[in-house]
Order: sequence, then C-alpha cells, then structure tokens
Amino acid sequence: MATAGKVIKCKAAVAWEPNKPVVIEEIEVAPPQENEVRIKIVATSVCHSDLYHLFESMHPEGFPTVLGHEGAGIVESVGSGVTEFQPGDKVIPLFLCQCRQCRFCKSPRTNQCEAAWTRIRQEIMASVESRFTCRGKRVLQFMGTSTFSEYTVINQIAVTKIDPAAPLDKVCLLGCGICTGYGAAVNTAKVEPGSTCAVFGLGAVGLAAVMGCKDAGAKRIIAVDINSEKAEKAKAFGATDFVNPKDHNKPINQVLVEMTNGGVDYSLECVGKVEVMRTALESCMEAWGVSVIVGWTDMHDIAIRPGHLICGRTWKGSMFGGFKSKDGVAQMVKAYMDKKLMVDEFITHNMTLDQINNAIDLMKDCKWYIPTNLSTKKFPIGYLISNFIYFFIPQHSDCNECFSAITQLSSMMAS
Amino acid sequence: MATAGKVIKCKAAVAWEPNKPVVIEEIEVAPPQENEVRIKIVATSVCHSDLYHLFESMHPEGFPTVLGHEGAGIVESVGSGVTEFQPGDKVIPLFLCQCRQCRFCKSPRTNQCEAAWTRIRQEIMASVESRFTCRGKRVLQFMGTSTFSEYTVINQIAVTKIDPAAPLDKVCLLGCGICTGYGAAVNTAKVEPGSTCAVFGLGAVGLAAVMGCKDAGAKRIIAVDINSEKAEKAKAFGATDFVNPKDHNKPINQVLVEMTNGGVDYSLECVGKVEVMRTALESCMEAWGVSVIVGWTDMHDIAIRPGHLICGRTWKGSMFGGFKSKDGVAQMVKAYMDKKLMVDEFITHNMTLDQINNAIDLMKDCKWYIPTNLSTKKFPIGYLISNFIYFFIPQHSDCNECFSAITQLSSMMAS
Repeated sequence: MATAGKVIKCKAAVAWEPNKPVVIEEIEVAPPQENEVRIKIVATSVCHSDLYHLFESMHPEGFPTVLGHEGAGIVESVGSGVTEFQPGDKVIPLFLCQCRQCRFCKSPRTNQCEAAWTRIRQEIMASVESRFTCRGKRVLQFMGTSTFSEYTVINQIAVTKIDPAAPLDKVCLLGCGICTGYGAAVNTAKVEPGSTCAVFGLGAVGLAAVMGCKDAGAKRIIAVDINSEKAEKAKAFGATDFVNPKDHNKPINQVLVEMTNGGVDYSLECVGKVEVMRTALESCMEAWGVSVIVGWTDMHDIAIRPGHLICGRTWKGSMFGGFKSKDGVAQMVKAYMDKKLMVDEFITHNMTLDQINNAIDLMKDCKWYIPTNLSTKKFPIGYLISNFIYFFIPQHSDCNECFSAITQLSSMMAS
Repeated sequence: MATAGKVIKCKAAVAWEPNKPVVIEEIEVAPPQENEVRIKIVATSVCHSDLYHLFESMHPEGFPTVLGHEGAGIVESVGSGVTEFQPGDKVIPLFLCQCRQCRFCKSPRTNQCEAAWTRIRQEIMASVESRFTCRGKRVLQFMGTSTFSEYTVINQIAVTKIDPAAPLDKVCLLGCGICTGYGAAVNTAKVEPGSTCAVFGLGAVGLAAVMGCKDAGAKRIIAVDINSEKAEKAKAFGATDFVNPKDHNKPINQVLVEMTNGGVDYSLECVGKVEVMRTALESCMEAWGVSVIVGWTDMHDIAIRPGHLICGRTWKGSMFGGFKSKDGVAQMVKAYMDKKLMVDEFITHNMTLDQINNAIDLMKDCKWYIPTNLSTKKFPIGYLISNFIYFFIPQHSDCNECFSAITQLSSMMAS
C-alpha cells in the first residue's frame, strides 16, 4: 500500500489522564518494526476493562494512552520477519499473546504466554513499546492493542488471522468478551453434561458463559442479574432459570443453595466485583462446587472463610476463557461462520469514534448513579450514529456496578 | 462381654469450659443404641484441632465436651442394627463419616457424607447426640468421636474396621493427621509425576504431605518450616529442599518463586493460618499452580487479589485428605502393614490420659510465647510417662503459631 513504510496520521481517542474525557486527536502511527503488523481498525467494541483503567485503577503511569482491546481490522503493512500476515488479511488483535515458543504456550495447562511478561506492563495495562505519538508526546498502547484508533501497530504474536469472509463489525466481539465468558465455562470450569450452573451478571461475558454452559451440556443454567429485562435474552442464550437478587430479601447465595438442594455444581462470576466473587463461591455445592472468577478487577482482595474451600469447593480464575488466544479466536470465528456460535445477538447499539465520550459517560453515569437509587432508573446503553469506526457496546458493561451494589444491599438487608 | 448393655464408668478428660485445663473425671458411657458401636480406646494422639476448639474457636455451646478425634481401639459391644462390627474388632473412629448411601458417598467427586450434616453440629464441633454424662450433666462428644476417654460410643458410619494385626499405638495416627496430609497431595492436589511442590509446615500433616508428594512422583519437594531442625526429618519423608523463612528477609513466596523460575506447580498449606494460606497460593506458578489448604481454621477470612486466581491459579481445600473415610483409613492401615507407608516415624513422644494437661499446656505455652520472641526458645514437645491410654503427640501441633508469626514478620520486614 501507499502508506507502507510511512508514518500514518489518523484519528484516535487519546486518554490523556485518568478520570477525564478522552480526546479525539490526530495521532502519528509509526510503521511496524521487526515482527510487527500495522492494522487498519474497522470495528471495535467497548469493554468494562477499558473503563476500569480510566476510572478505577487510574495508574498515573498508565497515561496518556489509547484504550480499546476488542476490535477487528485489516492488515495495512508488516515489518521485517513477519511471515504469518500480509497486507489485506483480516485480523483480530489479541490482548493476550501466543508466541507458540515459550513453556506456557507449549503446555496444555495454561493459555498464558511468557512473552506477555516482558511485552506488557501489567500494572499500567500497556505494552512496553508504543508506535503512537500525539502532539509530540509518546502515547501508550493499552494492553498492547489500542483499538480506539483508526490504525494500530501490534506484535505478530498478538494478532490472529481470521476467515476473510468474516464480518468485522460482528467478530470484533470475539477479541475479548464472548471468548472470555464462553471459554470460562467450557475450558476453565469444564462444565459437565447434566450439571447445574449459575452465571452471575448478564453482560456480554455472562451471556457468553450461559451459552458455554449450554454447549457443554448443562441441565440447568441459572442466570442471575439485577435487571429482569435480561431474563428473556438469557433464556435465548440457554438459561433455564432467571433470578433477580432484588426479588429476594436474603443473600442470593442462600437463594441459590435452596433452589438447588445444596448449591450449584459450577458458578461463574461475570461481574468483576469482589463481593460477587464471594457470593458465587458460596453458591456452589460445598462438597464439589467449582467457582470461576471471570470478571476482571484487581483493586481489592477477595475474601472467603477457609472452611468454604476446605469442605470441597474449588476456586479458579479464567483469563480470556482459557483460550490460547491465536488459536482460540480463529476457531471461534470459524464456529460463528459455521453458525455454531451466536455473536450478532450480543450487539445492542453502536456509535462512532467521534462519539466515544458519550458511550463512556453513559457507563460512568450508570456507575455513579446506582448506589443512590437502586430500583427506578433505566440506563440508555448507547445509540446509533455513523462515522468511520463503529463502536459496539455489548451488554458487558452496563450494569456491573449496579449488580454489585444490589447484591451487597440484599446481603445487608438480610443480615 | 460382661459390660455389654450396661453403663460403663470410666476415666475421660472433660473440657468443662473453654480456655481452661481439662479435668480427668469419671464419666458414664451409656450402652450403644441402634447403629452404634461402643469402643474401648487404646491409643489416641493429640491434634491441633482439639486445641483449636479449646483455645481458639471456644464456642460457648461446645462445652462441656470430651476432645480427641485421632484414636484407635477395640469394639466392646454393639447396638441393634450393627452388622459390620462385633466385639473384639480393632477399629479407628472417624470424625468424617461415610454412610455409603447418600449422594456424596455415591459420588467420586467428594469425600463428604451428607449424614454428617445432620449428625454433627459443625459450629460447636460436636455430634448432636451424646452417650456421655458426668456429675449428672450431659457431656458433648467432640466431632462425634471423643477419643480422650477410655470408652466412647460412635455411630457405625463413623467407624472403620482395620487389620487385626495392626498395632493400635501406631495406626491411631491414621485417624486424622497422616491421611489428611498424604491425601491432600495424592487425592486433592493430584500431584503429577515430575512436578515441583512446596509444603508449608512440617508437623505430622505436612510431613505426610511431603510423603504424598513423593509417592505421587514429584521431582522436587520444597519443605518450608521456621524450625530448621525439621529439615532432616522432612528429607527422610522425601523432601529435596528445605527453606526456613527466618533465613530470608523477603516474603517466602518470593523466595520460592525465585527458586523455581516462576513458582511451584503445587503448594500445600499444612499450618492452618490464613496468612500462610495466602503465601502458599502466591508461591504457585501463576499460569497453572494449584494450592491446597490442608490446615484447619475457620475463624477469619482468607484473602487474595483476584488477579492471582484469574491468571491461572487454582485454590482448593482438602478435608481429611479427600479420603472417603471408612474405605480410606482401612486402605492406609493396609499400606502401613504392607510397609508401603511410614507411620512410626511420626511419633516423637507419648504420655498418659492423666497427664493430658501437660501436653495441652506445652502446646499452649508455645503458642503464647512465640510472638514475643521468635528465634531463641526451644519447645519440649512432650515426655514419656505411663498409664492406661497412650497419648501420642505428633509433630503436627508444636509450631503452627510460630510458623505463622515468622511468615508474617518476614513479610512485614520486606514491605
């Protein structure tokens, strides 16, 4: 392409500092260096982890940055040493890499990649290197991906090639949320046929977890959310029961234990709140329950009584659903193209890069508002506008905070 | 026997109230009722869980009680409906029952027994029923066993028949500590051949865990204790390395991670302290480490950062080493008789029922003393006297507190 080897000037949403609106800027995207791929981002979705960095962890060294890690695009050019990709390839960026060379990549026991330990600075959620500059300043690449930009540069170990027929405005969701939830059920919990499951939080991750439980053959899938409007959708993804903590005046784990004669076989926490993580574990059958933490947070400790584990429960976590990223995403795209996986159904609204602060504000307002009035307000999730890059807001991030707050309140009311 | 059907008057150590010496009393032991077995206790050992009830949890409704849950004896008489046992059988009481009828007993996924939920009041660590009276008062049976008595009455689902040739003064240790540690490695962690393990705390449970790791084929077994005199014994049981947290001025999990290029594959916490449970989890390989809580406590929450699980670790607990109790203890006795299992090597001292407060005081003094002076004092573990029932003090309980205190201090010094 005419742009190969040259700096590309393009639009990106720059988060200059924590807890502030992002700014649509013209940034310079340097050509890909050795083993790197420059990608034209066509579609991206917003995930709660983007907002987690901007409003919750707010690590001062993690700014300025370009957020976004759930996208899809087309290879514009490649650096030296890249043999796996060529311009025109449809690809999905991977916030978790797969080098295929390290002891982790070679082991079936994990989807971690040792290269990530040197490539990504976990505490600031950014790659060590960046090809972005703006107004003369270096701008970080969030999780090494930065999909809230028209162009980005990523190491080839963190990119996967997908079916050229795949619609990018749909499969971008496979870059994080759907794989995370689905894989947590199938790969991490290893849900068994005939079992009983509970999924806490019915955002994109939770709905994907419901879908994973169903595909694994679960007999009963209890979907839990404080928004009863999600019940119908959860059932479309495979849930057999829906429980709204607001409908009960006792802790929701107690409700689930009573519903299931002792607790569920598997529980999946898809909210990212420490109180819900505890509730999910306590909702499991004491003798053999497996609880998987899927929602991301790392600001506070989770806590549990030792006896709740000693008696027989297992507590696990799932990063990107246990999928080895390069292989897993390509497989999930194939499953979607083969009509074996629901993806379109996750998308509720979309907007453009220029309007990204509207999406962020909606989420932020939701978060601040909920603790003061738990039952009456409805939240617009996004709205349709048009421009260059489409932003899809999956259901992932609209109600994390409210769900947690409700669970806490229910628990407080009952105690 | 001449005593069958009659009340037996015998000696027992009655704990009238928490945090006080136990009192050697004459108690009345009623005849066994339906499905019950009356057992003449020949030997018993002291476990930290006995002291946990007396000095830590101190539940006011849990007294008066007769402690002791790790013993061996001979059937004196049986109640109606008992077909599995007859007078003269050598048996080991089981604090965890196995009814063989419930959904748990029929499942390979757990060693819990649903009958325990109605038979034992977990919060006061005593069975619902008791055949003991003393000075006109009903006395509770600790964990349904009460082996600190010359005679006890136990439901047949909580007794296992053993090889009549087995020496009771040795195999009594299989009633708790050795099975708990050994099974935690073999059954719960499912240690794989060639793996690297760490065992925290080298009491009887910890040494048995070392032995379990070795029998499972672990390549490297790192034994961790604040008492370096245990290094030699740990190596006799199979440890390849010994680490004393007192020898390091940084958190011991950091030491282990550095020793093992990222962490151990399996860690086993055999201390029963929440701080050590966290340390053990953090000592595991982030990508796939499995940490098992073996030491018992349920007074305080354990805590961990969600990210420490989300990245790939698994946290489990082990109750009685995952053994289905009736089957497992009989098998372990057989393994001992076949010279495939070390037991004699765990016994360091013994004493008699009349001297039980000396044993308790020694443990208690150890516990109170340690936090004020961590490095200089040595603790007598017990001493030899003679009388009716032999008390064996395994290494289980001598240094739980000091280990924990040292770990905490090391951590504080480094932070």
